[in-house]
Amino acid sequence: MGDHLVRIDAQDRAVNAFIDFDADRALRLARAADQQPEKGLLHGVPFAVKDIIDTVDLPTSWGSPIYKGFQAPRNASCVEMLMRAGAIPIGKTVTTEFAYFSPGATRNPHNLDHTPGGSSSGSAAAVADGMAVFGLGSQTAASLTRPAAYCGVFGYKASQGSIDLQGVMGLAASLDSLGLLARGIDDLILARAALCGTVLPGDVQGHSSPQKIAFFKGPHWHEASQSMQDACISAAEALRSAGVSVTDLESPSEFTHLSECHKTVMAFEVARARHFEFRNHPEQLSSAFYGLIETGLSTSRADYDAALAARDAGEAALAKLLSSYDAIMTPAATSGAPAGIEATGDPLFSRLWTVMRVPTVTLPFGRDTANLPLAFQLVGRFGADQTLLAHSRVIADHLQISCEIPKLQPHP
Amino acid sequence: MGDHLVRIDAQDRAVNAFIDFDADRALRLARAADQQPEKGLLHGVPFAVKDIIDTVDLPTSWGSPIYKGFQAPRNASCVEMLMRAGAIPIGKTVTTEFAYFSPGATRNPHNLDHTPGGSSSGSAAAVADGMAVFGLGSQTAASLTRPAAYCGVFGYKASQGSIDLQGVMGLAASLDSLGLLARGIDDLILARAALCGTVLPGDVQGHSSPQKIAFFKGPHWHEASQSMQDACISAAEALRSAGVSVTDLESPSEFTHLSECHKTVMAFEVARARHFEFRNHPEQLSSAFYGLIETGLSTSRADYDAALAARDAGEAALAKLLSSYDAIMTPAATSGAPAGIEATGDPLFSRLWTVMRVPTVTLPFGRDTANLPLAFQLVGRFGADQTLLAHSRVIADHLQISCEIPKLQPHP
Repeated sequence: MGDHLVRIDAQDRAVNAFIDFDADRALRLARAADQQPEKGLLHGVPFAVKDIIDTVDLPTSWGSPIYKGFQAPRNASCVEMLMRAGAIPIGKTVTTEFAYFSPGATRNPHNLDHTPGGSSSGSAAAVADGMAVFGLGSQTAASLTRPAAYCGVFGYKASQGSIDLQGVMGLAASLDSLGLLARGIDDLILARAALCGTVLPGDVQGHSSPQKIAFFKGPHWHEASQSMQDACISAAEALRSAGVSVTDLESPSEFTHLSECHKTVMAFEVARARHFEFRNHPEQLSSAFYGLIETGLSTSRADYDAALAARDAGEAALAKLLSSYDAIMTPAATSGAPAGIEATGDPLFSRLWTVMRVPTVTLPFGRDTANLPLAFQLVGRFGADQTLLAHSRVIADHLQISCEIPKLQPHP
Repeated sequence: MGDHLVRIDAQDRAVNAFIDFDADRALRLARAADQQPEKGLLHGVPFAVKDIIDTVDLPTSWGSPIYKGFQAPRNASCVEMLMRAGAIPIGKTVTTEFAYFSPGATRNPHNLDHTPGGSSSGSAAAVADGMAVFGLGSQTAASLTRPAAYCGVFGYKASQGSIDLQGVMGLAASLDSLGLLARGIDDLILARAALCGTVLPGDVQGHSSPQKIAFFKGPHWHEASQSMQDACISAAEALRSAGVSVTDLESPSEFTHLSECHKTVMAFEVARARHFEFRNHPEQLSSAFYGLIETGLSTSRADYDAALAARDAGEAALAKLLSSYDAIMTPAATSGAPAGIEATGDPLFSRLWTVMRVPTVTLPFGRDTANLPLAFQLVGRFGADQTLLAHSRVIADHLQISCEIPKLQPHP
């Protein structure tokens, strides 16, 4: 753990990944883990905790001034499950306001003038910069996939509902899902096993080789940057060269309006989940967040129910597709990390998969013209997260993906 | 609201429905509601809040000494939605420990020597005794249906996931559902409309008449008391006399082990959701709750996944059945409220429907040999809660059900 604490000390004044961090506390937790009678799957492994996740001994402020310094009376269940496996929650990482769009102070470790993405900004930056082995993140639109892509690390978003959310701020109950960020897929696999209550999965050592991948440009392909398109196409070519069948897939008609349905579901549900802050602290909300709640309150239940019904139809079409393919391969974001930290980028390429509740793994591949990381994502069958991770591991090997820690940058 | 406050003052030293109540605060909230520019659907209606639901100005202690006096920093979204419609949360009502089995101090208003049921003990007793127009409850096993039945009031458990749970203690995420208790079905319909974001439903005034009811004895019929069996059979007879088709229904084979699957899912999920208390405060847990978590931690993910798969098969069989019937009619509990307040009764008759996530409405009908209320429940299609409530209203009319407030009882 020492290396990570040294890195935080050296670099976090520049990166601002952590909002609450205390080296003495981290060392104390590590010593306590050492005294447990059995060594767990993640013994002594330091991890970062997104600041919408409750921790009993560090504040949880949800990226909002309303809850600055709020001390939760317990740990979220995900923190508990990781600690039970011996992992050490070393600190809380920056989130956007209520895990929506208004950014915190985090910078992209690959270039401090660029956004790390959001809302799991701090966890992605901390992991990319070698400050933690893995990070807890969450996704309601693209909050895990996008920062993983922008920061050049692996990202795993779980099948919705497969990891307990007790003690995690709720934003939109039909969409909220936990996930993990790491520089190696094995770390994702091990941390997921601890979170989900599986023992060490058999296929961490073995190889479950994907035979058939569907390459999916989808309804938004023309909104991806040229470098992102090129990176995805060249990843597909490289896989073909490695003997994997990669077939172009037409977008089913059921998907056409699902990105819009995602927006409808999200607005309706956020308006309920965060109504207290809207009613009692409107002056402390960003105008974007206030506007989202207004939109949600003026959305009718009938429109919401129709969006969920369209989601159900999309899920059925997707399940049918995934009976013929091992995974779908598609861009992880519209581009590399945009310049500036006043915004966190576009969630467009994740809405579809998030609303359909399926697991995704983000794999860094290539660089854009500004030398910032690019990435594609693999989409798997609902509930088949472990298989998707095993396939992702083989694909990462084929593509020789490695996530190097960027060089130390001068403080801006 | 005055009548309700008077009733609480006169009677709650005997019934112990409320754990936190402050008449001045209730009147202050009512005055604030009066000053809102628009009168909502539930303007000025006093309601009771189960003490696993966060309120910003009264403590939320989850029925556990661990959280005695804990003050949440916000209202749960369900409280917000009801307040938005003008309703007044007059106080917090007793729950069992973490909404599981270990009871609080509440007594049954129909006979103070009997249990009100649990875990929504206080909300059911408060409503039955005329202390509130309706109460918020929740159900993970039988925590709403059973107290509604024992206390002789109407109970509505929502389709799982249809009402936002933000700010409600999580026990088992696949099972937890909110619901309502009231002495009239119209109150359930109106409060649900406020909770779900529908406007005044068109069928509150109209009648959506159920044509075909399935009478379901199910796998546990022989475990119901003779009076419960008799009450259900005579309700079915009365409906037939009123011209409703009531047909005996065989239990599909997919249902056979679902009550056991419910237990597996519940233990596995509770062990995660409440692991913090298990690890940090074991001495403050009842042995029953501690044992539940031990069971859950020793349940394998494979067994849990198998239970969820059996649930999926059950839901498909149930959906098929409910394409031929308007609702299923079945006992709401094994018997009337047992004597004593050291236990809250048996959840057996609800496990099946809770694990299958469908909406249920409990209707009081008949009395047992100790003159305590009996009840049956109607089970509807997933997501068709409004139709189920409308059908329940017609059936309650056919059976001339009215929930009288019991006479004041001498303090025990």
